[in-house]
Amino acid sequence: MTTPHVVVIGGGFGGLSAAKALRRAPVRVTLVDRTNHHLFQPLLYQVATAGLSPSDISVPIRWALRAQRNVTVRLGDVTRIDVAARALHFAGEPEPLTYDYLIAAPGSRHAYFGHDAWEPLAPGLKSLDDALEIRRRFLLAFERAEHATSDAEREALMTFVIVGGGPTGVELAGTMVEIAHRAMPRDFRRIDTRRSRVVLLEGGPRLLPTFPEGSSDRARRDLERLGVEVRTGASVTDIAPGVVTVGDTRIASHAVFWAAGNQASPLGASLGVPLDRAGRVLVEPDLSIPGHQEVFVVGDLAAVKRNSHSWVAGVAPAANQEGTHAARNLIRLVQGAPTRPFAYLNKGDLATIGRNRAVAVFGRLRVDGILAWLLWVFVHIMYLVGFRNRAIVLFEWAWAWLTFQRGVRLITGGTPSGAVRA
Amino acid sequence: MTTPHVVVIGGGFGGLSAAKALRRAPVRVTLVDRTNHHLFQPLLYQVATAGLSPSDISVPIRWALRAQRNVTVRLGDVTRIDVAARALHFAGEPEPLTYDYLIAAPGSRHAYFGHDAWEPLAPGLKSLDDALEIRRRFLLAFERAEHATSDAEREALMTFVIVGGGPTGVELAGTMVEIAHRAMPRDFRRIDTRRSRVVLLEGGPRLLPTFPEGSSDRARRDLERLGVEVRTGASVTDIAPGVVTVGDTRIASHAVFWAAGNQASPLGASLGVPLDRAGRVLVEPDLSIPGHQEVFVVGDLAAVKRNSHSWVAGVAPAANQEGTHAARNLIRLVQGAPTRPFAYLNKGDLATIGRNRAVAVFGRLRVDGILAWLLWVFVHIMYLVGFRNRAIVLFEWAWAWLTFQRGVRLITGGTPSGAVRA
Repeated sequence: MTTPHVVVIGGGFGGLSAAKALRRAPVRVTLVDRTNHHLFQPLLYQVATAGLSPSDISVPIRWALRAQRNVTVRLGDVTRIDVAARALHFAGEPEPLTYDYLIAAPGSRHAYFGHDAWEPLAPGLKSLDDALEIRRRFLLAFERAEHATSDAEREALMTFVIVGGGPTGVELAGTMVEIAHRAMPRDFRRIDTRRSRVVLLEGGPRLLPTFPEGSSDRARRDLERLGVEVRTGASVTDIAPGVVTVGDTRIASHAVFWAAGNQASPLGASLGVPLDRAGRVLVEPDLSIPGHQEVFVVGDLAAVKRNSHSWVAGVAPAANQEGTHAARNLIRLVQGAPTRPFAYLNKGDLATIGRNRAVAVFGRLRVDGILAWLLWVFVHIMYLVGFRNRAIVLFEWAWAWLTFQRGVRLITGGTPSGAVRA
Repeated sequence: MTTPHVVVIGGGFGGLSAAKALRRAPVRVTLVDRTNHHLFQPLLYQVATAGLSPSDISVPIRWALRAQRNVTVRLGDVTRIDVAARALHFAGEPEPLTYDYLIAAPGSRHAYFGHDAWEPLAPGLKSLDDALEIRRRFLLAFERAEHATSDAEREALMTFVIVGGGPTGVELAGTMVEIAHRAMPRDFRRIDTRRSRVVLLEGGPRLLPTFPEGSSDRARRDLERLGVEVRTGASVTDIAPGVVTVGDTRIASHAVFWAAGNQASPLGASLGVPLDRAGRVLVEPDLSIPGHQEVFVVGDLAAVKRNSHSWVAGVAPAANQEGTHAARNLIRLVQGAPTRPFAYLNKGDLATIGRNRAVAVFGRLRVDGILAWLLWVFVHIMYLVGFRNRAIVLFEWAWAWLTFQRGVRLITGGTPSGAVRA
């Protein structure tokens, strides 16, 4: 009997934990990703706000799996899953890759709710390239404001709009306002960066809708104290170059950032099974898909029932637990044993707001302020992969905390690289 | 009487030292650069070889000058200098910028000696974007080799060719061979990265032509011991996709890197004064240009006579000294005093070859091996700008020295950022 071939799509939290859980299994594993790195997405907003370098929150996937001899890592862009033929198709490669078992964890992208024209005007935050683009626009706005020729232009350049009041939006707003008010003032001569506006727009009635109301209130109060203009019940109706429209209000801004929603990977559609509105696969209790016990879906692409009235959130700990669970069920199948249903263990929710400020929820226990912030720091350092990344992130945070500066204020990628610096 | 307006073009070593030397001068200074950062170019090859992050060797120019209230920093791409009108023209901006005094330090680019078609096939190393492109190609070659379908394809993918045996070529070759032989082997399953070839091609008779012959011999011996194939007297006659031709020899390679020569900024031509073959401005002894005492040229754009038979090299210490000297001469002009001729003080030359190996020359004293390497480490840490960069670079070096790993093995920028990770 030949060794079964397991293909894992995605080197994010779900895919990487699945591959690791197959360490001692009698299978050979191929992990496929479009990028060469595992990305610690919870800290991606810090790359977007010049606090961390891309390499601080990522490791090469093949380095993370270097000691696991039954895994081969492959760089490739999966375009379609053919469940009938048990094969994956890649962009630009004629040969499909066949599997005996599949664990699909391709993740999600930000969604514009039918307004795809907004994407170039309001970039979202999912990949390192996204983060560098947001960083570029954020830093470039101050450079342009310094040499603006009218008050109106200067004010529009110094207005930053963040759409979406979930954890990512709250974190971006809190960090951007701190940089404008504390890190930048001495560096400019013609503008007072402390007069920058950071506007956080949330369509629903409160920030952090997945947290208890007390945390939402606290987050709003903390952000407002930092200088963020928080507007709830504020649905964006249009985004045009230089203008964000919210109902009757027009906000002049050249730097709009999108943190308002996700759409699961389009690969889900190629599975031929029912999807939810966000494009997520409605998986069976054991995380396989209906009609194909050999195919598991985990992470942001999976719609996993938590109980009769709620779903498991698309967060890193959930993807980790699902990846591990799917791998264990896969081993049970290989051994001819029945699979087991997945049960999510929520260890708690954390969102940071700014220097010394965060909110945390553990079951019925709510923690705010500096204690929550210290917990947040500890948990994020602990879950980073590799000693190097932990050490450098800790150093960057200590330096930023002490000096209010940000270490990665680089504008790259926007100028043609082929010409002479002038 | 109004305060004289000094414009400095370029935030590299020459421009930044000039601006700093004007700290107490009764002038207002505008420093213009195409990028927002001062780049520590001597360590750029380490960004290209995944050892350091872009932010580790760069600082925002306006941050470096934050305490100097008479300087305004401006992001802009200077296209032409009009010495008659005393004005600079910018790409995409209708208004020229006028000056009373000008210090031009726009630097240089790699030159392909009339073979501009080679540039996309053999990228050079001058900017951060260049370094990221070299890193991308270097790392991607291993990824592709892991899934190559023929021996010939695999061998071509695992052959790295570096054109040019000066310090940059030597440093790239020594680092690349160490990464292939020491950092990578455990991460791949189908290829043995220790079988990679790193070929260093030098057209002249020896490596490091600006160093004494003893250093050249030592560098060659050290590189060969590390596993680099060194070929001197090997002029590249053609570069085509997948093939480098040297006379009758064809080397199959998909990763060719260019370190073979520089061409000064085209801005020099707009000054209307004599240039040398490399496009450098033949400056007066006081670093001004003929016929325009108010215009100084420093750094890589300046051809500065050292004595009757030699020229000052295009290195960071020379640019620093020239920038400071030009600024002091400018102050003398403002005060109505005569300018003074520039004299270069060569503190020594250093080139690193690999782990524990370097060559150094101080006047008649030659130092090789680990002592030269420790000197190299000390000098480069000392000259980095800012505590943060020094601390992080030291940490990265210690980690790489102990583990043989490289911390920044990221492939970015090559895939479209708008699609879902798979």
